Amino acid sequence: MRLATVDCEGRAVAVVERDGGLYRLDVPGGGTLGALIAAGPEVVRAVVDAAVEPVRATRHLAPLRPGKIVAIGLNYLDHIREAGVEPPGNPLVFAKFPSSVIGSGDAIVVDAELTKDVDWEVELGVVLGRTLRNADKDEAMAAIAGYTVANDVSARDLQFGDGQWVRGKSLDTFCPLGPVLVTPDEVADPQALALRTRVNGQLVQDSSTAEMLFGVAELLSYCSRAFTLEPGDLVLTGTPWGCGAFMDPPRRLAPGDVLETEIEGIGVLVNPVVGAEARPGRS
Amino acid sequence: MRLATVDCEGRAVAVVERDGGLYRLDVPGGGTLGALIAAGPEVVRAVVDAAVEPVRATRHLAPLRPGKIVAIGLNYLDHIREAGVEPPGNPLVFAKFPSSVIGSGDAIVVDAELTKDVDWEVELGVVLGRTLRNADKDEAMAAIAGYTVANDVSARDLQFGDGQWVRGKSLDTFCPLGPVLVTPDEVADPQALALRTRVNGQLVQDSSTAEMLFGVAELLSYCSRAFTLEPGDLVLTGTPWGCGAFMDPPRRLAPGDVLETEIEGIGVLVNPVVGAEARPGRS
Repeated sequence: MRLATVDCEGRAVAVVERDGGLYRLDVPGGGTLGALIAAGPEVVRAVVDAAVEPVRATRHLAPLRPGKIVAIGLNYLDHIREAGVEPPGNPLVFAKFPSSVIGSGDAIVVDAELTKDVDWEVELGVVLGRTLRNADKDEAMAAIAGYTVANDVSARDLQFGDGQWVRGKSLDTFCPLGPVLVTPDEVADPQALALRTRVNGQLVQDSSTAEMLFGVAELLSYCSRAFTLEPGDLVLTGTPWGCGAFMDPPRRLAPGDVLETEIEGIGVLVNPVVGAEARPGRS
Repeated sequence: MRLATVDCEGRAVAVVERDGGLYRLDVPGGGTLGALIAAGPEVVRAVVDAAVEPVRATRHLAPLRPGKIVAIGLNYLDHIREAGVEPPGNPLVFAKFPSSVIGSGDAIVVDAELTKDVDWEVELGVVLGRTLRNADKDEAMAAIAGYTVANDVSARDLQFGDGQWVRGKSLDTFCPLGPVLVTPDEVADPQALALRTRVNGQLVQDSSTAEMLFGVAELLSYCSRAFTLEPGDLVLTGTPWGCGAFMDPPRRLAPGDVLETEIEGIGVLVNPVVGAEARPGRS
């Protein structure tokens, strides 16, 4: 199943994509796709099966607003080689604030007063559909509601200047997400997906989730040892080689750039980059 | 106003404390205290004024589940002197996951398989009642829904072993919060509040919010430059001198300890420490 949240005449509507069309999901309580996912996979299946009303959408929004975003650093072998660092012995957990989430088509805002060094990171996003605590790998895989594409946009100067990465990773608009959430039954092997980034059409990241140091099941199990993963939480699984910071000279995002981040079988996020002066509602 | 969420016959009920009694808050839509706060201060005032039904509670729960927890490191001058480090030039932002929140009376779980070095940190917690983005100090102060007591419990070995602090700061039960949320009209000066921690009755932290390097208004304004602060978000403002890590020899929390974290005019959190074997639902 390919689930999404779309803009339909100014309202956010949860839909399923089927045979090239969009069909409204009648979420119990009138809720969001996030609320549907939190109700568990049986409810998701029943609501999807009952969806027959076509929806005409103008654009995709982020599929959901995650409860928390758990991100993993240095988790691709090709990225570790590129960075010239030792592979970490454990998954390296960091956080992004959920207020950074935007959808495909939304602009990534680069505020030149705040940062001069903004970079991209295509990542496989894993959304939880069940609560996980002290889970083994099988329990972890059974708790996945779906996979999506994420761009872990990063202000490198803030990230490394602070030492703690969360501020540089959490600027508003720094987590494009979507365009769809694909349920696990349609992803034969999450460790064999091609993923790519293009900047203004130029291929800059081109790898496979096979390069992950710690796979999806191990990441979820590891995190669940420390803290409870809850339905609607998002786990970002790291990025492969090809970030702008490691280019010679380094390639930084600037207003006018257009980013495409893509994962095979899931979809493509398209996000233009704009300056802060274009930010609506700036005080 | 002193607002709280209490356990009333197994249900979480939003209340106001008035004249030594608890009165039920009739939150529109049957929601939580967090939902009431998100509705804005005018709605809070109206709902509090209408509260007349007494509630008999067995205990206080965490006042709310924050949307995000923004925490600040090294923000007390006495703590900076104790740590022997240079004062940071900017507030040092890090994150705790909201899944770590518990209430007063709830147990802090120390899982010896995960950490051997758990420490306390009393902190003034600031809960947002309005959206803040690029706010100046006056706008920041006007957006505060209330103040509460937080204990930023920290697994030092994970915190410093990972480098990124979020895992060691976000173990389940590592964010006691409450027991009440006190609205700004009852806090004459948030930069002149005594705050203390006692471990098994022994005073270990004893300072004042006057020791903050960056005050509440500056912290909120600074954070709002980078990311949107939303109603129900919690900002933790740092901890003063007296953490266990700086004692000689270091003092680590162990099952059987009882922690009291207190802020003048707000209240006292009381949290026993237990081992992981006592954790309910462990698989």
